[in-house]
Amino acid sequence: MQMGLIGLGKMGGNMRERLRNAGHTVIGYDRNPELSDVPSMVDLVDQLPQPRVVWVMVPAGGATQHVIDQLATLLKPGDLVVDGGNSRWTDDVKHAKQLHARGIGFVDAGVSGGVWGLENGYALMVGGDKEHVDRLRPIFDALKPEGPYGYVHAGKVGAGHFAKMVHNGIEYAMMQAYAEGWELLEKVDSVDNVREIFRSWQEGTVIRSWLLDLAVNALDEDEHLEKLRGYAEDSGEGRWTVEAAIDNAVPLPAITASLFARFASRQEDSPQMKMIAALRNQFGGHAVEKKG
Amino acid sequence: MQMGLIGLGKMGGNMRERLRNAGHTVIGYDRNPELSDVPSMVDLVDQLPQPRVVWVMVPAGGATQHVIDQLATLLKPGDLVVDGGNSRWTDDVKHAKQLHARGIGFVDAGVSGGVWGLENGYALMVGGDKEHVDRLRPIFDALKPEGPYGYVHAGKVGAGHFAKMVHNGIEYAMMQAYAEGWELLEKVDSVDNVREIFRSWQEGTVIRSWLLDLAVNALDEDEHLEKLRGYAEDSGEGRWTVEAAIDNAVPLPAITASLFARFASRQEDSPQMKMIAALRNQFGGHAVEKKG
Amino acid sequence: MQMGLIGLGKMGGNMRERLRNAGHTVIGYDRNPELSDVPSMVDLVDQLPQPRVVWVMVPAGGATQHVIDQLATLLKPGDLVVDGGNSRWTDDVKHAKQLHARGIGFVDAGVSGGVWGLENGYALMVGGDKEHVDRLRPIFDALKPEGPYGYVHAGKVGAGHFAKMVHNGIEYAMMQAYAEGWELLEKVDSVDNVREIFRSWQEGTVIRSWLLDLAVNALDEDEHLEKLRGYAEDSGEGRWTVEAAIDNAVPLPAITASLFARFASRQEDSPQMKMIAALRNQFGGHAVEKKG
Amino acid sequence: MQMGLIGLGKMGGNMRERLRNAGHTVIGYDRNPELSDVPSMVDLVDQLPQPRVVWVMVPAGGATQHVIDQLATLLKPGDLVVDGGNSRWTDDVKHAKQLHARGIGFVDAGVSGGVWGLENGYALMVGGDKEHVDRLRPIFDALKPEGPYGYVHAGKVGAGHFAKMVHNGIEYAMMQAYAEGWELLEKVDSVDNVREIFRSWQEGTVIRSWLLDLAVNALDEDEHLEKLRGYAEDSGEGRWTVEAAIDNAVPLPAITASLFARFASRQEDSPQMKMIAALRNQFGGHAVEKKG
Repeated sequence: MQMGLIGLGKMGGNMRERLRNAGHTVIGYDRNPELSDVPSMVDLVDQLPQPRVVWVMVPAGGATQHVIDQLATLLKPGDLVVDGGNSRWTDDVKHAKQLHARGIGFVDAGVSGGVWGLENGYALMVGGDKEHVDRLRPIFDALKPEGPYGYVHAGKVGAGHFAKMVHNGIEYAMMQAYAEGWELLEKVDSVDNVREIFRSWQEGTVIRSWLLDLAVNALDEDEHLEKLRGYAEDSGEGRWTVEAAIDNAVPLPAITASLFARFASRQEDSPQMKMIAALRNQFGGHAVEKKG
Repeated sequence: MQMGLIGLGKMGGNMRERLRNAGHTVIGYDRNPELSDVPSMVDLVDQLPQPRVVWVMVPAGGATQHVIDQLATLLKPGDLVVDGGNSRWTDDVKHAKQLHARGIGFVDAGVSGGVWGLENGYALMVGGDKEHVDRLRPIFDALKPEGPYGYVHAGKVGAGHFAKMVHNGIEYAMMQAYAEGWELLEKVDSVDNVREIFRSWQEGTVIRSWLLDLAVNALDEDEHLEKLRGYAEDSGEGRWTVEAAIDNAVPLPAITASLFARFASRQEDSPQMKMIAALRNQFGGHAVEKKG
Repeated sequence: MQMGLIGLGKMGGNMRERLRNAGHTVIGYDRNPELSDVPSMVDLVDQLPQPRVVWVMVPAGGATQHVIDQLATLLKPGDLVVDGGNSRWTDDVKHAKQLHARGIGFVDAGVSGGVWGLENGYALMVGGDKEHVDRLRPIFDALKPEGPYGYVHAGKVGAGHFAKMVHNGIEYAMMQAYAEGWELLEKVDSVDNVREIFRSWQEGTVIRSWLLDLAVNALDEDEHLEKLRGYAEDSGEGRWTVEAAIDNAVPLPAITASLFARFASRQEDSPQMKMIAALRNQFGGHAVEKKG
Repeated sequence: MQMGLIGLGKMGGNMRERLRNAGHTVIGYDRNPELSDVPSMVDLVDQLPQPRVVWVMVPAGGATQHVIDQLATLLKPGDLVVDGGNSRWTDDVKHAKQLHARGIGFVDAGVSGGVWGLENGYALMVGGDKEHVDRLRPIFDALKPEGPYGYVHAGKVGAGHFAKMVHNGIEYAMMQAYAEGWELLEKVDSVDNVREIFRSWQEGTVIRSWLLDLAVNALDEDEHLEKLRGYAEDSGEGRWTVEAAIDNAVPLPAITASLFARFASRQEDSPQMKMIAALRNQFGGHAVEKKG
């Protein structure tokens, strides 16, 4: 199948390679001419046979909106756009409407796999009309892992990114679960070898998982993680998961706790704990730690 | 009324003064001879008329146990011991039993008031037999604030400290509530003057309280709390509250969150967030912050 | 001062009364002709001298937008609109812009006080240009409680509702704090009289507050709250507080826990706990409770 | 190797079978004569050659203490007791001391595997002296899963149960993570097929795990879990994990949230939410739901 691919960063570049390995003809465009197959989006569109398929793989938000705006102008009725980036599901609904007004189809695809995807395949969660999704099946089949899993048509437009977003929310809480357990084990004197405990859990336990395998890899590189700072970014999907929960009145205590732990990890000093210290000092005369 | 008072620190010393101001005869003992009225606990006991009342106001745990052990030997049947320190309610039950075996009565008293108690009175939450509690009423009346509030016979032995413990648990979450709100207001550009917002809340709002008044005092001293570190100790009662909740299968999400925020505030770097950083790096190739 | 007041529900009606008691001339409009002073918004605008002041006190969202749209058409340059409802601060920014385009000023006012406001005054948190806010001072002075507190000019447009929103977030966590403590005390056998413990806390403690007074009122009406269901609505501001926290990467664990507790209180049966039950059954053969 | 095994319930019975399949000679004792190989513990001890190995597999708490007390009398110096039940690590320290006083060794073994253990092997986390642990290796090798994982000597006496306890804490939060995500997906209209989303996640995603496989099994049996009640017990280890965290000042927000969600799931009506409802009614005149 012939297709365009816009955005050839770490994810997009690897996806192009996996698609080509599967026999597809991929014309890639990136703002960086060293990565790009064509000099412009116009060229990319010109070189694709109609009805065209263009996969967008650029950062969520402004960059994606910019590409969608361009494609709305360049593409023709019957063409089909896939947003495989990390867009918010609410943006999908807007983009689908914008493109639909010009007769262009839209499918959203949540893509998981990270640096391991090129080799193992990318898990795909897809939202959109059945007709559009069916047209893209050869591409999805090339990208997804072998075997029966790793692909789902999750529902209407937006459902793919919604499912991927919830996947990431779950991921946050699972990571937090291991992290909390690890800290507690490291803290206790009678426990000698936390790394080997983690390693042993990889078989026969209820908590065996791919994330656990990665934790063992990390501990093999740096047993007590002494080289790292306890600092973690968050990437949008965690926040959107909590916001979606609030919109739907669904309590998400563990996922939200995991998000807040990341927020706190990025603070040099906690403003709210200054207020706690100030209050303790006011009513109890408790000593406070003044700044150096 | 004549009574002994063991422990003349910040709290005990002020209580002695308030009791004497109310006309009671207080013989105080402290390990620090500069604070003490008598050279030893033996002297204190000797100078009190039978049946004696001895109020213990020393740190919870070993120090209190040591004094109880001594008093169990020195006192006589019919005497009465009050533990006004911050003992765990489970210790009260043990102490009551230990003293009861020698005919000595025991009452536990949770005392709130901090540095403001000398002037405003101490809130008292009392546990023990009605007969013992009634005998102590003149002392409680002298210590408590004027007016109808500030004193309760909460239940059996241990109930006084249990009520005080829950009071402190509630206090943790109330402080956390104001602290979270303050941080959010400070973070937002369109809000100019957080201190004045707090001040305005002191009348007409749902959240007016004595803690709010203290927050305003603190902000008047240091508008953005720039002189403080976001570092807060916890004092036992918060932990015991959560443990009691676990024993009784009662969910305490807000109080527990407040306790954990204090734990986190005392960590130079968060071990659990190192694990989060390590995992993100493993699966996503996300950059990690290495140490200096 | 002459002013229009749109929305004469429980809040608006009481505010009209308090304003009139203070000597202001208030022309009220409500969709309900039995409450309204004039038959239409057009009449209200016609009867006010220029430059007009119109206070909007209708439900947040669509109803407020509808009134703003109408006023944008009916009012003239130099007139001034106050939104005293529970609008989201982000809507204020939109409304100010919409009205500014027609030369009409806008001020947002967060109003606290509930059913007690008529008698005790309403706490006001105000956002907008100094010039507009100054013009409204006589109205604010009439509404606010007597004394030095209960009014603040919090910042730019939106800051009033933002401050009120955070007030409500704090309120959620304070209520949760008392509620958690109350449940724990009620659960424990050695504690006899939880209502009297709450009553005693009203003086001399760290946690005395107006909410505590209300809790005692409630317990006086129904000592164990046996007549109530454990069911609590939430009103927008709690959700927005958490969303604002997420936007600003501020951890709000206690406030969010309080919001989630309300969500959970409204579920007949918890879907997430069904999944927990299903998983326990899968790996451990643990018994599950099947439905009726 | 010859060994005694006390407690032949679901876990103990399967372990006896797996040990015998591996060629060990197991003399089992259970209070239930239909399960037991010998009529009494005395007979079990008599039939074992010295130095004996006796594995205890009875419920934690009183039942385990009773067996340890008996074995302390029946066994001889040089014999070795293994507690493979779910004892609290703090009990291990007591039991080791009690047995050590009579020259008897003690090892604690946290055992994971549930109903799948007989076939797949049991993950073992072991605490105790190297000499004792080494003596038991043939037994551990028979019980553990094949392959390099599933066994660890975690540290001193107590470390085995401590590691197992933390394992269970992590398990609580992982289950909660999937459960929260599942509820959110089920709630949203644009998502059609949550079961197929979960199924797809089994390959190529960050959150693939054995628990996820079990979730898919459960959804295959009952797609929307309509036959279950949202009700979950907790089994001790989750509580102890949080208590250990409190003892060590380690914040465990996600694990604790998971424990509290289980507590709440078992309440017919939430007392704390009654207080929230009562307070809302007091200050805002908000309607409350009255019972029946």
